Amino acid sequence: MKAIMNHRSIRKYKTNRIDDAILNEILLAGTRASNTGNMQVYSIVVTTDAEIKKQLAPCHFNQAMVTQAPVVLTFCADFNRFSKWCEQRKATPGYDNFLSFTTAAIDALLAAQNVCIAAEDKGLGICYLGTTTYTAAKIIEVLGLPKGVVPITTAVVGYPETIPELTDRLPLEAVVHREVYHDYSPDDINRLYAEKEAMPSTKQLLEENKKETLAQIFTDNRYTKKDNVAFSKAFLKVLHDQGFMNNEE
Amino acid sequence: MKAIMNHRSIRKYKTNRIDDAILNEILLAGTRASNTGNMQVYSIVVTTDAEIKKQLAPCHFNQAMVTQAPVVLTFCADFNRFSKWCEQRKATPGYDNFLSFTTAAIDALLAAQNVCIAAEDKGLGICYLGTTTYTAAKIIEVLGLPKGVVPITTAVVGYPETIPELTDRLPLEAVVHREVYHDYSPDDINRLYAEKEAMPSTKQLLEENKKETLAQIFTDNRYTKKDNVAFSKAFLKVLHDQGFMNNEE
Repeated sequence: MKAIMNHRSIRKYKTNRIDDAILNEILLAGTRASNTGNMQVYSIVVTTDAEIKKQLAPCHFNQAMVTQAPVVLTFCADFNRFSKWCEQRKATPGYDNFLSFTTAAIDALLAAQNVCIAAEDKGLGICYLGTTTYTAAKIIEVLGLPKGVVPITTAVVGYPETIPELTDRLPLEAVVHREVYHDYSPDDINRLYAEKEAMPSTKQLLEENKKETLAQIFTDNRYTKKDNVAFSKAFLKVLHDQGFMNNEE
Repeated sequence: MKAIMNHRSIRKYKTNRIDDAILNEILLAGTRASNTGNMQVYSIVVTTDAEIKKQLAPCHFNQAMVTQAPVVLTFCADFNRFSKWCEQRKATPGYDNFLSFTTAAIDALLAAQNVCIAAEDKGLGICYLGTTTYTAAKIIEVLGLPKGVVPITTAVVGYPETIPELTDRLPLEAVVHREVYHDYSPDDINRLYAEKEAMPSTKQLLEENKKETLAQIFTDNRYTKKDNVAFSKAFLKVLHDQGFMNNEE
């Protein structure tokens, strides 16, 4: 609980490596996560080699922490292992479809969060890299992921160099709906975003980016429609190429 | 760490309700999860009302725990709130595409796992319901989810009536790859699945289902190609209907 409530994304790491016993312990924590039908349709690629991390860096827009952190964990939806097992056991796997990708991605993400919480519980710091779905094709190439395997998220892990302040969150009522979904009125939106918009860091961002509203920094700079559309096409192509889009019998 | 390593899926619950303070604490733990650009593009629908749980039950194949457990949590990918905020702030949201769905689903799943671990840390039991993606259209109807919102997983939460044994997992080396992906040889598959296949429960399952191999129970009974294809089509239609498949500029 303490690890969960104290989570910060760590972006600067000490050079200290992670002891193998500790690394195995946090990976084992990943395998205790709930998963679909106990099929465990995910894989975790543990990259520590400087040369391979260097190849991964551009997949994550050359953020320094990819080469700086001692360990890069790439969490993958993986029906390759399970399907191979089926084929060796006189069973015909039917997992080359979008539902199976979704299932495997869910498994991978629950395992990822277990690994990250376990790491933080051991005094390590982590940072998720959302770039994974943007550049999945290149990651597949660098890590040699076969058909049936798609990277869904990445976390860097290591000992924190500096520990930042806890970041803000929307009030709980912004994300929680009681009984059924209650859609947001304009007043709700104003109230729920008021604290975030009033933060000194927001004022600073607006000045730096010469924008009128914080929302514009997201739509115009950080997460643009143009990028989202390009990444959507690329990621759907990856699902197709990795054999997860055979949605006909 | 203890909560993570002791996780069991709980399928039988006491009738005791969950105290509001405890429920809020575990939901708050959900909001501390890493999320994309601190946009928090997820929602959690907390259902405790007996009548609404009854409506949700068929969405989860009428598993008794949906009506029995005091709380049903439906975790949703949600770009509705964020897009409404953008529109009210002179910003044009570009989040009606597949990449944005993927981003929001990742956010929802990391939050879900935080909630579940926090619940277990408080002595509660949980069980994920993979049926959520199979019957998403019906869940959308029951919970009144607007465009931009897609349910991705569900967890029932309550006080365990009985605590089952820890379930088996594949050996760590089955899911962990060092540096890059190492594909599985036939010998690898035999070795990695040997323990699972030798379990007394496996022998019992084979007899009950009159099957030659455990893999056949998965491919022929539990997760069939026919179901997967039907659910793939249905879930892609949900993504389309909820406004996440506009992948052209």
